[in-house]
Amino acid sequence: MRAARLTAPGMLELVDIPVPTAGPGEVLLAVGAVGACHSDLHILDAPAGGFPIPTTLGHEIAGRVEKLGPGVTGWAPGEPAAVYGIIGCGHCRACLRGLENQCRTVPVGGVGLSRDGGLADYVVVPASRLLKIGDLEVTQAAPLTDAGLTPYHAIELTRPALRPGTCCVVIGIGGLGHMAVQILAATTAVTIIAVDTSDEALALATRTGAHHTVRADQNAVDEIRRLVGPRPGGADVVLDFVGVDPTLEISRSVISAGGHLMLVGLGGGTLTMQPGAGVVPVPLEVSVRIPFWGTRAELKEVIALAQRGLIQAEVQTFPLTDVVEAYDKLRRGEIHGRAVLVP
Amino acid sequence: MRAARLTAPGMLELVDIPVPTAGPGEVLLAVGAVGACHSDLHILDAPAGGFPIPTTLGHEIAGRVEKLGPGVTGWAPGEPAAVYGIIGCGHCRACLRGLENQCRTVPVGGVGLSRDGGLADYVVVPASRLLKIGDLEVTQAAPLTDAGLTPYHAIELTRPALRPGTCCVVIGIGGLGHMAVQILAATTAVTIIAVDTSDEALALATRTGAHHTVRADQNAVDEIRRLVGPRPGGADVVLDFVGVDPTLEISRSVISAGGHLMLVGLGGGTLTMQPGAGVVPVPLEVSVRIPFWGTRAELKEVIALAQRGLIQAEVQTFPLTDVVEAYDKLRRGEIHGRAVLVP
Amino acid sequence: MRAARLTAPGMLELVDIPVPTAGPGEVLLAVGAVGACHSDLHILDAPAGGFPIPTTLGHEIAGRVEKLGPGVTGWAPGEPAAVYGIIGCGHCRACLRGLENQCRTVPVGGVGLSRDGGLADYVVVPASRLLKIGDLEVTQAAPLTDAGLTPYHAIELTRPALRPGTCCVVIGIGGLGHMAVQILAATTAVTIIAVDTSDEALALATRTGAHHTVRADQNAVDEIRRLVGPRPGGADVVLDFVGVDPTLEISRSVISAGGHLMLVGLGGGTLTMQPGAGVVPVPLEVSVRIPFWGTRAELKEVIALAQRGLIQAEVQTFPLTDVVEAYDKLRRGEIHGRAVLVP
Amino acid sequence: MRAARLTAPGMLELVDIPVPTAGPGEVLLAVGAVGACHSDLHILDAPAGGFPIPTTLGHEIAGRVEKLGPGVTGWAPGEPAAVYGIIGCGHCRACLRGLENQCRTVPVGGVGLSRDGGLADYVVVPASRLLKIGDLEVTQAAPLTDAGLTPYHAIELTRPALRPGTCCVVIGIGGLGHMAVQILAATTAVTIIAVDTSDEALALATRTGAHHTVRADQNAVDEIRRLVGPRPGGADVVLDFVGVDPTLEISRSVISAGGHLMLVGLGGGTLTMQPGAGVVPVPLEVSVRIPFWGTRAELKEVIALAQRGLIQAEVQTFPLTDVVEAYDKLRRGEIHGRAVLVP
Repeated sequence: MRAARLTAPGMLELVDIPVPTAGPGEVLLAVGAVGACHSDLHILDAPAGGFPIPTTLGHEIAGRVEKLGPGVTGWAPGEPAAVYGIIGCGHCRACLRGLENQCRTVPVGGVGLSRDGGLADYVVVPASRLLKIGDLEVTQAAPLTDAGLTPYHAIELTRPALRPGTCCVVIGIGGLGHMAVQILAATTAVTIIAVDTSDEALALATRTGAHHTVRADQNAVDEIRRLVGPRPGGADVVLDFVGVDPTLEISRSVISAGGHLMLVGLGGGTLTMQPGAGVVPVPLEVSVRIPFWGTRAELKEVIALAQRGLIQAEVQTFPLTDVVEAYDKLRRGEIHGRAVLVP
Repeated sequence: MRAARLTAPGMLELVDIPVPTAGPGEVLLAVGAVGACHSDLHILDAPAGGFPIPTTLGHEIAGRVEKLGPGVTGWAPGEPAAVYGIIGCGHCRACLRGLENQCRTVPVGGVGLSRDGGLADYVVVPASRLLKIGDLEVTQAAPLTDAGLTPYHAIELTRPALRPGTCCVVIGIGGLGHMAVQILAATTAVTIIAVDTSDEALALATRTGAHHTVRADQNAVDEIRRLVGPRPGGADVVLDFVGVDPTLEISRSVISAGGHLMLVGLGGGTLTMQPGAGVVPVPLEVSVRIPFWGTRAELKEVIALAQRGLIQAEVQTFPLTDVVEAYDKLRRGEIHGRAVLVP
Repeated sequence: MRAARLTAPGMLELVDIPVPTAGPGEVLLAVGAVGACHSDLHILDAPAGGFPIPTTLGHEIAGRVEKLGPGVTGWAPGEPAAVYGIIGCGHCRACLRGLENQCRTVPVGGVGLSRDGGLADYVVVPASRLLKIGDLEVTQAAPLTDAGLTPYHAIELTRPALRPGTCCVVIGIGGLGHMAVQILAATTAVTIIAVDTSDEALALATRTGAHHTVRADQNAVDEIRRLVGPRPGGADVVLDFVGVDPTLEISRSVISAGGHLMLVGLGGGTLTMQPGAGVVPVPLEVSVRIPFWGTRAELKEVIALAQRGLIQAEVQTFPLTDVVEAYDKLRRGEIHGRAVLVP
Repeated sequence: MRAARLTAPGMLELVDIPVPTAGPGEVLLAVGAVGACHSDLHILDAPAGGFPIPTTLGHEIAGRVEKLGPGVTGWAPGEPAAVYGIIGCGHCRACLRGLENQCRTVPVGGVGLSRDGGLADYVVVPASRLLKIGDLEVTQAAPLTDAGLTPYHAIELTRPALRPGTCCVVIGIGGLGHMAVQILAATTAVTIIAVDTSDEALALATRTGAHHTVRADQNAVDEIRRLVGPRPGGADVVLDFVGVDPTLEISRSVISAGGHLMLVGLGGGTLTMQPGAGVVPVPLEVSVRIPFWGTRAELKEVIALAQRGLIQAEVQTFPLTDVVEAYDKLRRGEIHGRAVLVP
């Protein structure tokens, strides 16, 4: 079968390998669609030793069950399914609560990360990683597993603060940010303030449910402050899907005392916490986090939202044969919405 | 009456002023004891304009009700009481939930901060700020209102993570830290790991309930890691009561993925959050906060703990006439436990 | 001024009394609108000794500030306001958290219950009971304070269970039930199943956001089960706004194991919990509660929802002179939506 | 091997059957100890059709890993382990959060219930059901899995209410109740009030950490009220480990408005909820539940408490050959603490 593999640091190749076999408790899945994620670029760019080589990439996967390994129940060949990518230890205090994205034993890993992923005709995954998707199209279901799940999880971590009468600022209306706007619109009554540098992105924000849009320029903080009110108040929640220095500066400047600041975007910027500084960079009682992906329970809820038609990912599909080109476009910022590969 | 007042930037003087009058909803309290807090030094050191001048300092207050202002019910002259120092707006979404320490309208303020405090023979406070203390000694009750309340609140913010089988690291076993150890021992079954530079402080930690002590030197991270296990696990909660660069470095190095890092000590150090950095300075999913003081509901619980004999502040008393000397000693680090002024 | 008062058990009269005076911390409010609540009928029907006589009824109040008592700040004459009716002790562990509806000291009481209410030209209330309503019409604001707040609070108690992919059954689409449907539609993505005996009520449910309607007859349980799935699953939340034996029977029959059953309607029916019975009347792990009214923080959020146009009460207005007739109609079930008296 | 099996309704026999084989994902455990639970008597007494026949009983199991089935990792032969008895569907919204005791798909079932249990020389369980116990004695570990876990879970459901200054009433100081007292003493600072009919049980309560003991007679409510204060206040939490009419009457009479009432004991008594009744049988805002067993995450914490020496079950051991006699004694109330069978 075909598989897009990391064959050397920085090298992505479409190669031919044998179809893998499902072991005990595993399932062989015929891949229907795979999202191309920015974090795959991180994997490609990692120095030698960072990730196992060769590995098939692709951690946003949907498809159909092809074959059940020994001991698997609850699934039948032909059933459509989405893949939850994280594989925790299953025994630590986080995994036992279903928080595998906080596993205390296994560092960041899973399908398409520490073992072969879905950029191939077939992929083997533990049966416990599969979730039913019913009639949902696989090209929609695939991006839900990361581009949908990651913002959903970040929102879940702040949900008790997302009350009527409060504001949530969403910075960066790209692949994850436009899902965040939809999730907020579907599940809360907060005022949604979208922030981006591009007109197109702000238009997308309005279309998907934002109540106000603010251009991310030198006036952004003042404009947002007009909407969220003066210090020590402000936005109860800020979701930063970019994570570069300028967006982190906006984030800390508009967050309310006691608010929640989620640094979702891995832009490499720096936010400083300085307890006791004369001018406090981050207000008192604010909770700051770098959230990571999400949980299986949350993915089930993301799928439910999509099945009700309440959220929808903007996708651009490519045949698997164009995989190298698709990632090149992704790197050059030429993808609108989510790039999805179709084997 | 006598009052220790900020009379100019940097100037603390014991002066004679008229006994104030309790207005509607207020109470005149005969002061019994007042804790001397490090944050008073911040007030003294603030440049002109930072705080109203003249103001009577002192925000850790206990005493007896002297006289009720118009409309006050539920209190009788002679009743012993502790003072909750924060005065929020009473109407914002935080105040309505009793989270006045997160008031969205009034910046940090209250008794002894934005209005006259308790370093005097009498102080006027809103009746709603008083809590009953029964037989508790006023020299014990006074420090509970801040040196007891602040660690209690920091612990409350992390309580869902303080489960049997997890570890809590307490850095800095001084006035607040030794209260934190007692609160943890009384209300949880976590393993308590105390960290300090001084033998005396570590002995105090052991005496008050810590299970392990670690000297805060260059081996501290390794020693704590031996107790809390390797990454991505670690301590589920770290309470840093110092907040200088070396303690922040220990804090971020031993916290577990998904843990809670509370920067209570206002030491002026810097912690950086870098989403997307190759080496993550703070692990994924960790919640970082600079907590502020606490709530009235929490103070009631702190008083309940003290009444049951489960927590006890180490105090060193001074007559009010020695107030200037007491703060000088505090500044020079010559106070063991909490300095308490007795009018 | 005119006042509709309980002058003897069972006797409601519109009488003339002096305009009251606002004491310290109180406000004199010119009443703009007062909702007529079923619980007023309970007060009228109570035997001698149950409630103070004479008392002016009316606990769903909105109006304008007329005069401030001594010590009141933050309000100006002419400002529109809604009244939060409950007056807790202010000092117990519930009140300190803003849960005055669970006050540990004061039994059910407040404005229009244990002291004079709003069915009059003027009413005196503690300033802390007032919430800003901005441009909201007083005839809308008045019913929000109970008919809006009570379902909002019941929903808040179950909110962690109201997740995408789950079902909430709302029984009784009357004055409170139709608000519940709107609140659920505005703040969650659950599937809303409305149950009532009347076609008109079910049409109202559909209009206000219910996804399914079920007639409350002998097939109701089967029909709801078709929507919520078989035992031990089912509806994660059931809100019963009727509380008679047949609705309680539906409630317990469709609730999921681990669900939340809120008995809001005071219909006098009986639900039995039988730990260990061969046939369990209420499934395992279900939380059953009789919720009571709500909190000030919640009322602020209800007002925010109304200001955003997300919820709207159906009201039928009467001049204050028709107060006796209005309550007669209410008793005879001839009121559609909420009856609101306008002085 | 020997196995104590339900061979016909009401019939428990020690028979000889083949040693079972561990399938994919399963483990063969050499049984070290099995607790005899009252619920086994329910199984024995169930009419035909209630439970599969023949089934080996025993759901409180600890032992050593004998052999791994295909695909099992993380365990080695010889390792000591305790068994979490519940087997949920693994895919519903409850199971994905680790709340298998609230599984929406599988009714009450698991090891020793819907499949062969541990009253035998060997038992096969899914590897995911095993928890490490280290040096803990198997006769201690076995009862933790139910007699320890069930009260721990009931306490977890009420934990946010178990604050300093509040009271928890524990009714019935038997096998589960004396564990509840220890768990409360180890993990909270609440005032523990133990209630029982027997002097011996009350002495055990005092020994294990109760602060007050009350004899369960006609004065019990008055005595408890002296400790918890008058209505609408009272005990914030009541744990009823008996569940007969007289204990339910005490429970509802001493619970505070807004409290938590946990009906753990399956005594078959009846508690009525009557929304709108003149005299409310259960106070407003009280949450009433019949909790069921617990979760894997909670069992891990129970084991951690035991390993720290903070809880200890009183056990009485019997050789497996005496299994029929042991259950007879259990039925006749002649067991003190927990009966544990040792193969």
